[in-house]
Amino acid sequence: MSFSPLIRHLIDSLRILPGVGQKTAQRMALQMLERDRSGALRLAQALTQAMNGVGHCKQCRSLSEDDVCQLCLDPRRDDSVLCVVEGPMDVYAVEHTGFRGRYFVLKGHLSPLDGLGPEAIGIPELLTRIAAGSFSEVILATNPTVEGEATAHYIAQLLAGKGLIASRIAHGMPLGGELELVDGGTLAHSIAGRRPILL
Amino acid sequence: MSFSPLIRHLIDSLRILPGVGQKTAQRMALQMLERDRSGALRLAQALTQAMNGVGHCKQCRSLSEDDVCQLCLDPRRDDSVLCVVEGPMDVYAVEHTGFRGRYFVLKGHLSPLDGLGPEAIGIPELLTRIAAGSFSEVILATNPTVEGEATAHYIAQLLAGKGLIASRIAHGMPLGGELELVDGGTLAHSIAGRRPILL
Ligand SMILES: [Zn+2]
Ligand SMILES: [Zn+2]
Repeated sequence: MSFSPLIRHLIDSLRILPGVGQKTAQRMALQMLERDRSGALRLAQALTQAMNGVGHCKQCRSLSEDDVCQLCLDPRRDDSVLCVVEGPMDVYAVEHTGFRGRYFVLKGHLSPLDGLGPEAIGIPELLTRIAAGSFSEVILATNPTVEGEATAHYIAQLLAGKGLIASRIAHGMPLGGELELVDGGTLAHSIAGRRPILL
Repeated sequence: MSFSPLIRHLIDSLRILPGVGQKTAQRMALQMLERDRSGALRLAQALTQAMNGVGHCKQCRSLSEDDVCQLCLDPRRDDSVLCVVEGPMDVYAVEHTGFRGRYFVLKGHLSPLDGLGPEAIGIPELLTRIAAGSFSEVILATNPTVEGEATAHYIAQLLAGKGLIASRIAHGMPLGGELELVDGGTLAHSIAGRRPILL
């Protein structure tokens, strides 16, 4: 038995959601049809409104339905530190750490093989933002991947001699991690970055 | 930092999906906004079309956008066996086993504490369907839960003396299961339902 066309189309469409495979999509579709049609219609409306209404903040390039986002407009934040991340999701992650400076969101990382150079990921806009600001430090919080490291290095080089500190987030053991389970590169970084214990 | 209103509303709306908590909903919302807005808009449309267009088959009560579903209309199926299940999802599960008879979909199971009696779950319609058909066997494939068992028993009693066999799906060890991991009730059913090995 195959699903009827409308149900099949719904199942296929649900598979664009991250982490949703065929089985999960089926369960989602049938459960909504059986148990929560009004919730599903509200979801359809929320999707339409968000996809059409949410753009990018002119200043930090994070997701925002206003020209300039609430975070950029907030006068209580520290204007001396800029945190550069690869994507809007990273803003929420860094924000969660208690960081209260400003942000700039790249469009991912440099990826020459995919034809993604500095322009493609928004580095000219980053430089404009830095020039217009009064930052004393730029924290390069791109991902600790080969591409993220290369992107951080590239930006640090562009910032050299501009009278501000370009810093990189530390690598090391994740909290709660076990030495025997962590990869060798991480452990090496963790040892190289060791600090004296202050008693 | 809080999400902007449209994003927050989207995250809340995504949580109606089964198995989707706050963190997953956030990841879904941000990923769609960043990477697949056209897919998200197609999903919105598919949701609207399915919720408004899919009803229940008049004959088997499973999900269908036609008055009578493809499965009920299919002349090649076995008209002598009716399989009674608790919900539309179960139809797909049973169908997957190779069963090619007819179906009837209840609205769940009897649940007196929730005020769900025979009428609420569609038992009068089941009896009408059976009276109109030419079934020699009715397989009661409600779930092997207390409520599913009670529902199967209740229906079996209603069918007594009507000249057809009311059968119940077998309980036992799931394939690939381990005796020491399965619950005692299942194992007891499995032993009670043992069969001679045919060599
Ligand atoms: Zn902003
Ligand atoms: Zn049908």
